[in-house]
Amino acid sequence: MIPSANESDLLGLIASAAAPLRHDFAHVLVGPGDDAAVLRTPAGDTLLATVDQLVEARHFLPIDRDAPNPNTLDLIARKAVARSVSDIAAMGGSPAFALATACLPRPFPAHAAEHLALAVHRWGRHWSCPVVGGDLASSADAHAPLHLSITVLGYPHPLHPPALRSNAKPGHAVFVTGALGGSLASGRHLTFEPRLDEARHLLDALGPSIGAMIDLSDGLGRDAGRIAHASNLRLTLHADRFPLNPGCDWRRALADGEDYELLFTAPPDAVPTTLGPHHTPVTRIGEVTADTPGARVVTTAGDTLDADHAGWDHH
Amino acid sequence: MIPSANESDLLGLIASAAAPLRHDFAHVLVGPGDDAAVLRTPAGDTLLATVDQLVEARHFLPIDRDAPNPNTLDLIARKAVARSVSDIAAMGGSPAFALATACLPRPFPAHAAEHLALAVHRWGRHWSCPVVGGDLASSADAHAPLHLSITVLGYPHPLHPPALRSNAKPGHAVFVTGALGGSLASGRHLTFEPRLDEARHLLDALGPSIGAMIDLSDGLGRDAGRIAHASNLRLTLHADRFPLNPGCDWRRALADGEDYELLFTAPPDAVPTTLGPHHTPVTRIGEVTADTPGARVVTTAGDTLDADHAGWDHH
Repeated sequence: MIPSANESDLLGLIASAAAPLRHDFAHVLVGPGDDAAVLRTPAGDTLLATVDQLVEARHFLPIDRDAPNPNTLDLIARKAVARSVSDIAAMGGSPAFALATACLPRPFPAHAAEHLALAVHRWGRHWSCPVVGGDLASSADAHAPLHLSITVLGYPHPLHPPALRSNAKPGHAVFVTGALGGSLASGRHLTFEPRLDEARHLLDALGPSIGAMIDLSDGLGRDAGRIAHASNLRLTLHADRFPLNPGCDWRRALADGEDYELLFTAPPDAVPTTLGPHHTPVTRIGEVTADTPGARVVTTAGDTLDADHAGWDHH
Repeated sequence: MIPSANESDLLGLIASAAAPLRHDFAHVLVGPGDDAAVLRTPAGDTLLATVDQLVEARHFLPIDRDAPNPNTLDLIARKAVARSVSDIAAMGGSPAFALATACLPRPFPAHAAEHLALAVHRWGRHWSCPVVGGDLASSADAHAPLHLSITVLGYPHPLHPPALRSNAKPGHAVFVTGALGGSLASGRHLTFEPRLDEARHLLDALGPSIGAMIDLSDGLGRDAGRIAHASNLRLTLHADRFPLNPGCDWRRALADGEDYELLFTAPPDAVPTTLGPHHTPVTRIGEVTADTPGARVVTTAGDTLDADHAGWDHH
């Protein structure tokens, strides 16, 4: 029996295999493996670049193929754009433009396809990344999933470098914006606000002393592990400090995924208690130490668990 | 009965509906509707940006899900990257970096997924657009098609502006590189060479007097129609002048699609007879006039037909 692809393992494998290929293009400052790539243009601009895909029955519930609900299509377009915009936020940057693809099942109503495409355009404009190009295709199969991909290009903070996952330091505290858990069950995964304003405020406030940052897509545990391994440090998280959404315990905050909140490290006393125009709360949930790399969680019962793999693999 | 999406009509509809949205972002010099978008960065660089997708059973034959042939996976990766690189060529530009997504059927062998991902990286490097970011997902459905999307960013010719579809002029002749027809039947759609060198040579030679340019993906007739309508002019093509691949007649040259040759307009006497280091032949096949917009073909029997819709809709 040939093993099927486990995506997290596979991504790691591919990243490792591709690693030697990365570093011989001078204009590629940061290649695959962070929330966004970082590029240098000939005239000296720095670009951020990310792509994400949204797949029916993986990232949103199966739709009615004969008569898709327009509101549902709008939320699907919104989520597709917001996921990539959230990656730009996690670098402390601003979106600038986007490219989109849609692959439709066949048959699919023409008016629904038009509605979806215009919704992608509208959400791109909403987050200041107009869709400047795209491709529309139909699958040959009526059972093929509706599939979107959204590429977003952006620029980093005008004064400070992008906040990389590898930039945690021993002595940093670990912070998270907003509240965690229950995103799929509540439908919040379709309506979350990418933390652009909060990230910008954070870089305004901390400047180059900001540590590592990531947006929480695959769960606090797994994403904390990514910062830990990229920085070659230990992140210890305290379950009794997790900011919880209604109806969620610390386990769900750790593992549910799709929160799209910012997880970041910084000097303990440098971080505002709220960020951005909506005063989004910031909670200190842990610390960074120079121990064996990885993410640990101290449970409410006082046990210590590996947190790296406590996340929902939603790919 | 609700009509299913006809992609060409639908793309036109969406482009029309989105048109009023395009022109209020100052950094978007050319939005959707050309081979690539054209963007201005803050420091004054000009970027080209394009995205294309490759869908199993639409753009390549269904693969063996249990044991995909590695050579086949390599050709799939090659075609996915080459299609987007060809869009950059059609602007007279050079690729700079790429982002990629893959959505795998499930189950799919891990070693095959790794082989595919590394092939995408390798072909990106081959055409000087290293893959700097990506996303890997699995479908929830074993029957879902293998799906790739490739975004390529690039730069225009260092001295001359991009060759837009709208830039044909009355009095221009119509030219095509290479030979046409039979791409799918021969397998050439998997192995074509994007005409980067030829486009560069053309802009070197013609400078700003180059007219409109497009890469032939959907067939000579349909793509000539795109130049005609973007330029608001008539293109008249002469079937007896079409450069034909072995076994193809003018009808197939007109309609087969997936040739990925360059179709361009230019002053009649300004164009070299061959382009690029491999002396790719250039053939003059028609002319541009200020008549009712559209593409016409004068058949070998002397009849005149609408050519706009004579193309294979392979999306």
